[in-house]
Amino acid sequence: MQRAAALVRRGCYPRTLGPWGRGQSSAAAEASAVLKVRPERSRRDRILTLESMNPQVKAVEYAVRGPIVLKAGEIELELQRGIKKPFTEVIRANIGDAQAMGQQPITFLRQVMALCTYPNLLDSPSFPEDAKKRARRILQACGGNSLGSYSASQGVNCIREDVAAYITRRDGGVPADPDNIYLTTGASDGISTILKILVSGGGKSRTGVMIPIPQYPLYSAVISELDAIQVNYYLDEDNCWALNVNELRRAVREAKEQCDPKVLCIINPGNPTGQVQSRKCIEDVIHFAWEEKLFLLADEVYQDNVYSPDCRFHSFKKVLYEMGPEYSSNVELASFHSTSKGYMGECGYRGGYMEVINLHPEIKGQLVKLLSVRLCPPVSGQAAMDIVVNPPVPGEESFEQFSRTHQMAPDMFYCMKLLEETGICVVPGSGFGQREGTYHFRMTILPPVEKLKTVLQKVKDFHIKFLEKYA
Amino acid sequence: MQRAAALVRRGCYPRTLGPWGRGQSSAAAEASAVLKVRPERSRRDRILTLESMNPQVKAVEYAVRGPIVLKAGEIELELQRGIKKPFTEVIRANIGDAQAMGQQPITFLRQVMALCTYPNLLDSPSFPEDAKKRARRILQACGGNSLGSYSASQGVNCIREDVAAYITRRDGGVPADPDNIYLTTGASDGISTILKILVSGGGKSRTGVMIPIPQYPLYSAVISELDAIQVNYYLDEDNCWALNVNELRRAVREAKEQCDPKVLCIINPGNPTGQVQSRKCIEDVIHFAWEEKLFLLADEVYQDNVYSPDCRFHSFKKVLYEMGPEYSSNVELASFHSTSKGYMGECGYRGGYMEVINLHPEIKGQLVKLLSVRLCPPVSGQAAMDIVVNPPVPGEESFEQFSRTHQMAPDMFYCMKLLEETGICVVPGSGFGQREGTYHFRMTILPPVEKLKTVLQKVKDFHIKFLEKYA
Ligand SMILES: Cc1ncc(COP(=O)(O)O)c(C=O)c1O
Ligand SMILES: Cc1ncc(COP(=O)(O)O)c(C=O)c1O
Repeated sequence: MQRAAALVRRGCYPRTLGPWGRGQSSAAAEASAVLKVRPERSRRDRILTLESMNPQVKAVEYAVRGPIVLKAGEIELELQRGIKKPFTEVIRANIGDAQAMGQQPITFLRQVMALCTYPNLLDSPSFPEDAKKRARRILQACGGNSLGSYSASQGVNCIREDVAAYITRRDGGVPADPDNIYLTTGASDGISTILKILVSGGGKSRTGVMIPIPQYPLYSAVISELDAIQVNYYLDEDNCWALNVNELRRAVREAKEQCDPKVLCIINPGNPTGQVQSRKCIEDVIHFAWEEKLFLLADEVYQDNVYSPDCRFHSFKKVLYEMGPEYSSNVELASFHSTSKGYMGECGYRGGYMEVINLHPEIKGQLVKLLSVRLCPPVSGQAAMDIVVNPPVPGEESFEQFSRTHQMAPDMFYCMKLLEETGICVVPGSGFGQREGTYHFRMTILPPVEKLKTVLQKVKDFHIKFLEKYA
Repeated sequence: MQRAAALVRRGCYPRTLGPWGRGQSSAAAEASAVLKVRPERSRRDRILTLESMNPQVKAVEYAVRGPIVLKAGEIELELQRGIKKPFTEVIRANIGDAQAMGQQPITFLRQVMALCTYPNLLDSPSFPEDAKKRARRILQACGGNSLGSYSASQGVNCIREDVAAYITRRDGGVPADPDNIYLTTGASDGISTILKILVSGGGKSRTGVMIPIPQYPLYSAVISELDAIQVNYYLDEDNCWALNVNELRRAVREAKEQCDPKVLCIINPGNPTGQVQSRKCIEDVIHFAWEEKLFLLADEVYQDNVYSPDCRFHSFKKVLYEMGPEYSSNVELASFHSTSKGYMGECGYRGGYMEVINLHPEIKGQLVKLLSVRLCPPVSGQAAMDIVVNPPVPGEESFEQFSRTHQMAPDMFYCMKLLEETGICVVPGSGFGQREGTYHFRMTILPPVEKLKTVLQKVKDFHIKFLEKYA
């Protein structure tokens, strides 16, 4: 990590303390080292301490679930115990977890999952036929027709086929090969697995991994675990956090003095920036990767979360193919998707996939071997991934309900924003029924009058701002 | 890995070839290196090759899902295409996957899982009240009351409480603390995570990890990934594969010349040996670990798979506590359990837990940090773990049916063995109903007469052997 520390600038955000930050040396452990000569004492020094542990793990910093999140838990307990605060509820906006924020799961997805879980329900008249069809297809491809069997390490065959068909549709016909699809335990697993294979060398030929700043902290954590070199490129805050290829050039040039930059990670749409890259930008990045011989990692887990009408998601895969054979048969690319984001937000199932392009056939064998060590990704997560890429289509029984929930209804969107910005939790009118084209919300007026006044003031302020922004 | 190769003897089993064995150098990659000076050619050499990849990953050998399993897949395809073989079906006995072998999931477990997946079913009269109670308890502890939210990285609180209560019951009252329980993505994840934290040092102070030979190949794979030193101790084949502490002494003595042995892995009950360690043996091992300052890893995933009436499972935790405070407050132990084995065999859900004893508080922080990087284990797997440790109890509606399936019924046992030993798949009589105390199986007689004759001969031979063995 000394190598890494020399190169990277982590100054972008305040450094964390305690177990989440750099290894502070522990007075307790130092004191106990004195006792080492007296092993007969009943309290011996520990074998596993901050001093003796894996130094790369110690160097991992993890921001998303660090001390702030621990503190949030404490505050929640305090609120429960009645301690007064300027707010009455902690709203956990630290991680993109739609269902924890009150978003309801997609009915169709959960119906298929329930049918797969407890196939007795296949006889139940209260489940629609299209959900049963999906469930049967998945179960037939599972060992013993059960979600309870290990799957192939690369994932259930028919689910990989469905993923490939989805990608082909998404990319307007650019073909995807099920052999290039690997199902994973969330995108996190795919990203760390491919990085694990990529990292090699020592000293100045240690692998450098280029990541955007700001980044999603999984990247810096895995780079640290692997003792690779983190090479930062800065997104352009003054330009809506756009990626600038000149900044990539600067970063790679400086990095080459210290390491062997071999991997370029892109997060598009961006987290935490929300930036959606233009087609032109993606072309520039691919050309740069080709020129500099960089392996591309495209984290595209937010591909379904593009809301602004001026933006469109372009996959790296599609642009790569459109750039012609010089690129499409040479540039090595792994792209990632997840059940956790998009409109479904099924984080807890830990479903995900990765598609690899131009991976050397021998490396594919190595990849499957590495995945085999941990047997397989959760089969329920694989099933969830299947529904995400294979939703109801027009003509199927569940299509109407599905398409209604997919585009978040305006009242749902309003209530979500209200919750996020004020902590006030109300119910969208659609839950009660409303005349087409009108939108309502329902709130209880149980709080005492004084409190209600402040609550209503907050709603009013929010409403004015909301209309300014989205009118 | 040179360090490792000098020390370990992997000669116990034939070495594998291809991507599953040691990195053979690739002629293709060497040839393409010549082209490096002509980057304008349309087929460039790859960035990620056997030569450039992570050498520790390359060195991983993985036996359980290696070339034999790939071959099994090929043979299955051949059989499907009608190619004649001395058998008509591949029976996948390479990995302990009960449901892939035809074992039915436990109804209660799947009912709870279905209720958690699709909470509308909580209103359905076709689900028993005790299953609904379990599902409500789990959902209440989940973010947004949904399996679709990320859980705390250590796992859902109430499930960790249930695990602790289970361990306390199992160990006759020796207390377990929910704070010491970490839910994991199968036992595989727990084992590799704790090893990742433990490994450190370079040259002669590189961490040595003692593992039994024969082992479960996850261990050698993870040791290789981490570039740690594999220290083999041999189980005594002439003595039913018992663990002999003198052999541990030999192994650690020799290892100390090359590395710093810091971890002792035990698999009890053994895989692949099936050996169940005596209480005395466990005491000796704990004393040895205490003496030699070794961190103990107790892989106890087969704790519910003890069939012989002369054997009993003793947990390392319990024996440790019974040995008195010198041991129970000093020996560092991590033990592992899984939803994959036992009577439930829910491999696909990737549920598991680890209990840590005497882990330094600072290391606990490090552990949670490391787990946080990958967010959380699959919440559906956590729910499955909850049912495994919290099954129906006498007085509850589902108890009777559950206890009947838990002790595998004699007809089920017979059919399982028949399938395993002859490939003949028949149906236990209990699936059809039978008079109490009598046992049947049902087979179809659709094959042509000649074939039926050989099938019946096989059944006869099996039956005679079965009665000899189990009468
Ligand atoms: C950019 C990005 N990539 C990857 C992930 C990992 O998601 P998961 O492992 O749940 O698929 C996240 C989660 O927030 C993310 O924001
Ligand atoms: C001894 C042993 N430990 C651990 C495991 C891993 O099991 P899982 O990751 O499915 O919990 C297995 C699986 O076969 C095993 O045999």
